[in-house]
Amino acid sequence: MYTSPLLEKLIKQFARMPGIGYKTARRLAFYVLKLPDEKAKELADTIVEIKSKVSECSVCGNITEMDPCPICTDPQRDQSVVCVVEQPSDVFALEKTNEYKGVFHILGGALSPLDGIGPEDLKIKSLLKRIPEGIKEVIIATNPDTEGEATSIYLLELLKPLNIKVTRIARGLPTGGDLEFADITTLSRALQNRTTM
Amino acid sequence: MYTSPLLEKLIKQFARMPGIGYKTARRLAFYVLKLPDEKAKELADTIVEIKSKVSECSVCGNITEMDPCPICTDPQRDQSVVCVVEQPSDVFALEKTNEYKGVFHILGGALSPLDGIGPEDLKIKSLLKRIPEGIKEVIIATNPDTEGEATSIYLLELLKPLNIKVTRIARGLPTGGDLEFADITTLSRALQNRTTM
Repeated sequence: MYTSPLLEKLIKQFARMPGIGYKTARRLAFYVLKLPDEKAKELADTIVEIKSKVSECSVCGNITEMDPCPICTDPQRDQSVVCVVEQPSDVFALEKTNEYKGVFHILGGALSPLDGIGPEDLKIKSLLKRIPEGIKEVIIATNPDTEGEATSIYLLELLKPLNIKVTRIARGLPTGGDLEFADITTLSRALQNRTTM
Repeated sequence: MYTSPLLEKLIKQFARMPGIGYKTARRLAFYVLKLPDEKAKELADTIVEIKSKVSECSVCGNITEMDPCPICTDPQRDQSVVCVVEQPSDVFALEKTNEYKGVFHILGGALSPLDGIGPEDLKIKSLLKRIPEGIKEVIIATNPDTEGEATSIYLLELLKPLNIKVTRIARGLPTGGDLEFADITTLSRALQNRTTM
């Protein structure tokens, strides 16, 4: 028995979040309990607001507060290069590099027959529809795992006949990684994809 | 630049929580974004509700939705035994054992001169006031760290003249622990406090 059913409820809600165990959830709930009233209100408001205002960009499928999203409508960006990723969070990661000046296309996942995810579950049709609109290069940036690789091969087959450049983000040793501890696949990919110095 | 300022705001709010780094905060924000509307609303409501309805028990200092708290008013519990802890979350942990049938007293922290926390910052006066009300034993269950130990010694000095039993929760090897890897203090405490088999 605990003294506050509301606290238990909040703990359970936090514990449902990905990567949050019961103890972390408890710590978070106590943190919320100790927050100043206005900060807690602000957090609650943001949660409600994000659900009502954030939707999907009709062009690229990224999350956005306006449609089309700021990336798709940015005149500074190269609209002829599309980077295909699995999730909106991947856009986030790529944007942080400050390297990429093209636009994006978010598939909404990767091919995974075991999970019942086929091509019709991904935003592939809308990608193909974008190609004739002046796309010159498609960079496939799906995850370097089985599903991501399968998806990239599937996309390559579809894109090949369209006479555009199709590239895949490089695989190799991660920066700060240790050659000695790299797994076999990573190491053999790093050898295969070696670049001339 | 990211496509949703609201999402960034939510990420920042999560990242302020204890033990939540930027990447976890991002995962949580995306989780909230994917929640069904009613679930997100429920989470927001719980956060607001917990702030308005949960307060401190005037007897033991534990968090509660009614005053005095259910533990202090429970006739099934032994009101003559008080377990003194640092935080409400400690009550949580002890209650989970289902071992303890007495009541609690929450200090609200531990003595820590370096952080400027002295006896007047802890709920020690209200503890002393409870003693004449039929308390026979005080179990000091502050944390087994420097601050918790200092607090327990300080409390012992105050409680000794009152002619009640004062105990301290046992220290020793944790269950499932490995003797080989136990630190010196734990091991020497375990030796000192050895029990007859």
